[in-house]
Amino acid sequence: MGSPGSTKRNSTVKIIRLEPLVIIKIGGNIIDNEEKLSAFLKDFAALNTRKILVHGGGKLATQLADQLKVPQQMVEGRRITNAETLKIVTMVYAGYINKTIVALLQANGCNALGICGADGNAIQAHKRSGTTIDYGFAGDIDLLNPSLFYNLVRQGFSLVIAPITHDTKGQLLNTNADTIAQEIAKALSSQFDVQLIYSFEKAGVLLNANDDSSIITEMNAASYKELREKNLVFAGMIPKLDNAFVALGGGVKKVIIGKAENLHDLVKGHSGTSIVND
Amino acid sequence: MGSPGSTKRNSTVKIIRLEPLVIIKIGGNIIDNEEKLSAFLKDFAALNTRKILVHGGGKLATQLADQLKVPQQMVEGRRITNAETLKIVTMVYAGYINKTIVALLQANGCNALGICGADGNAIQAHKRSGTTIDYGFAGDIDLLNPSLFYNLVRQGFSLVIAPITHDTKGQLLNTNADTIAQEIAKALSSQFDVQLIYSFEKAGVLLNANDDSSIITEMNAASYKELREKNLVFAGMIPKLDNAFVALGGGVKKVIIGKAENLHDLVKGHSGTSIVND
Repeated sequence: MGSPGSTKRNSTVKIIRLEPLVIIKIGGNIIDNEEKLSAFLKDFAALNTRKILVHGGGKLATQLADQLKVPQQMVEGRRITNAETLKIVTMVYAGYINKTIVALLQANGCNALGICGADGNAIQAHKRSGTTIDYGFAGDIDLLNPSLFYNLVRQGFSLVIAPITHDTKGQLLNTNADTIAQEIAKALSSQFDVQLIYSFEKAGVLLNANDDSSIITEMNAASYKELREKNLVFAGMIPKLDNAFVALGGGVKKVIIGKAENLHDLVKGHSGTSIVND
Repeated sequence: MGSPGSTKRNSTVKIIRLEPLVIIKIGGNIIDNEEKLSAFLKDFAALNTRKILVHGGGKLATQLADQLKVPQQMVEGRRITNAETLKIVTMVYAGYINKTIVALLQANGCNALGICGADGNAIQAHKRSGTTIDYGFAGDIDLLNPSLFYNLVRQGFSLVIAPITHDTKGQLLNTNADTIAQEIAKALSSQFDVQLIYSFEKAGVLLNANDDSSIITEMNAASYKELREKNLVFAGMIPKLDNAFVALGGGVKKVIIGKAENLHDLVKGHSGTSIVND
């Protein structure tokens, strides 16, 4: 039977069961749609577990840039972040989107606390360099502050993370939200039983991008390698899948990729693609 | 001599000395000037005490509204906040200004954490009503969450507060930063020895608004009443002074009004106008 919170494997070895933590990354398709966002946040608030939400917010930043006549340039899905664009993404991600989400979660009884990577020195990054493309104020992560995340989560806050980091010298940096979710998941995997969920517009990893029924329900490193060799993985999925396998390699228990609309099924593993260790 | 943290008044009564907490409100004149802001934040970071920073950010919001062609209307120094303007102030206050300040404080070795009133349900407000003027999404404060502020301050965070609150039903609200500073000061006055500092462009409360040497170094409720009766108080100072006396009435130990450029002198009471109980 064992005492609460532990389970006996045999008479001498006792395995401590870690508390579950769900880390969910939502993309633009949810954020850009008021009704979908509202429904998703209701589901998120109702998840009876410790949880962290990481958000992007691409389209709203692009819209504001258009209104302000700041031309936007994307290279391989990454935004070239000049000084004006950094100001825009800081306003949109860390301001409008982050606080809109926090207020809606609070309205649903979820004690949300919104931060970016500069707050509490949560996520340190450096300005991307050494590439042929100048990404401007784009940050690559150096270091997370696991005790900050751990302490705030343990105090009962559902953290809402905006994808803005800092270089500890006063410079804010625009940072990929998928990578942030992966890094937080890894950094907390020794303290929690971490499940990482990438939610997006598709039902999961699909063999045919236009057919939700072509979903691959489970994938491991070997099957991923095989699918890539056969060119069966849609190019846009590769960074997400790479992040998923890095997370698994870093101690994260499970990664699931799927539709935000099915959040409770996703968390239970009844929907989406489960990325698992061999 | 007494034990650390306490002092003996006589042989039977022991007074527990509360830990000091400095709450500083900065206005637009500092925020709008990159060099002044940077110098101020260096001084703020160097203050060897628990501390909270409350900021406004009026001009930057007005500039963005101009660029986006959203007409702005001010009534008695208060912004009429329609839906578009609320989006703008949320982006500018809770996003750009808040995170710029946090990153600069972190660069100066100060463990800043930036929040707005929705985060952790910090500040509950309601949409202003019952006035002849429709202020739109302007919030009047109902309730603070003192344990949130207390716990985060005690954990060593220097909180940076953006003047956006929420109504607990999902609505963000634009709220006066002077009032927020006053309410936080009152709410924490039973846990800390609170000093509230309103910093602005003048040296303090002046008899002649254009002459810094006409400063009133100390003011109590009686002298304030007398000055008002003689019409010697500049109209723009009245809300700030009213807030100062409300704070004193609510248990705050000291309120000082003066120039942000003299922060260390202000905190020591060597500069500015000290607002004191009778």
